[in-house]
Amino acid sequence: MQEELDRYFLQKTIDLAVKNIHDGKGGPFAALIVKNNQIVAEGTNLVTSANDPTAHAEITAIRRACEQLGHFQLEGCTIYSSCEPCPMCLGAIYWARPKRLVFAANKKQAAAVDFDDDFIYQEIVLDYDKRHLDTQHIEVAEANRPFEQWQALSDKIEY
Amino acid sequence: MQEELDRYFLQKTIDLAVKNIHDGKGGPFAALIVKNNQIVAEGTNLVTSANDPTAHAEITAIRRACEQLGHFQLEGCTIYSSCEPCPMCLGAIYWARPKRLVFAANKKQAAAVDFDDDFIYQEIVLDYDKRHLDTQHIEVAEANRPFEQWQALSDKIEY
Repeated sequence: MQEELDRYFLQKTIDLAVKNIHDGKGGPFAALIVKNNQIVAEGTNLVTSANDPTAHAEITAIRRACEQLGHFQLEGCTIYSSCEPCPMCLGAIYWARPKRLVFAANKKQAAAVDFDDDFIYQEIVLDYDKRHLDTQHIEVAEANRPFEQWQALSDKIEY
Repeated sequence: MQEELDRYFLQKTIDLAVKNIHDGKGGPFAALIVKNNQIVAEGTNLVTSANDPTAHAEITAIRRACEQLGHFQLEGCTIYSSCEPCPMCLGAIYWARPKRLVFAANKKQAAAVDFDDDFIYQEIVLDYDKRHLDTQHIEVAEANRPFEQWQALSDKIEY
């Protein structure tokens, strides 16, 4: 029963991803946020149409679902994605804290059509000086001040 | 000279991060996008005020800078961050393709005040079945169809 539902929602993400290409909205990716077997929000890749490199399908879907639910956490939700999330989207999913993640294609399939997902997975675990991205950690005296003030704050909303 | 500029912009991110806390906007983080030594956009963490788990400082700054520049790439830009980007934000930075990333605090300092950055770095490299996040890869017959149609498209905008 659950796998039947999973396959139903995954097929829907695939159909949405195909439609997204032909609508000229962006890359071949789509995602759904589902709660209690109801779709809360859908998202597709809007990078090139919205001029937003962060507008991947999962990010778009998460933002819309949170707006819909009025909260910054996707408690009890499942995220369905037409393709394994890239590190940006997987990070976003961890921050949104849904119950499950289910995906169809994997990152090697995305890499085979020239998307950077697999490359970025390899990069982000490297030491700074070994990355293709010029990355510099500069020691600054006040670097910890925001954290100290955050800890000292009594009425903060944690996330 | 470059390091003096780097320290100037980093100090600015730290001041913005502190202000962000006291404005009640979200977590103790800020970022700047700089091009030719001019600030293109600034961003702070807006997760709890915008009900958006993806509204980290770097993501907010990248989205604003791309809107400002009218493009989905941050060519020639430097991203300054008050703290080492989490995997979501580092992924976003790779997709935005700036020239450099410079940051002040590191992920261990963020972890010391209970942010998940370091935990997520550890998680995303694990095999699916070893992650805390319930992750499922389901083989679907049509999984590759979006990629095939993307490849066949002649007038697509790549990113």
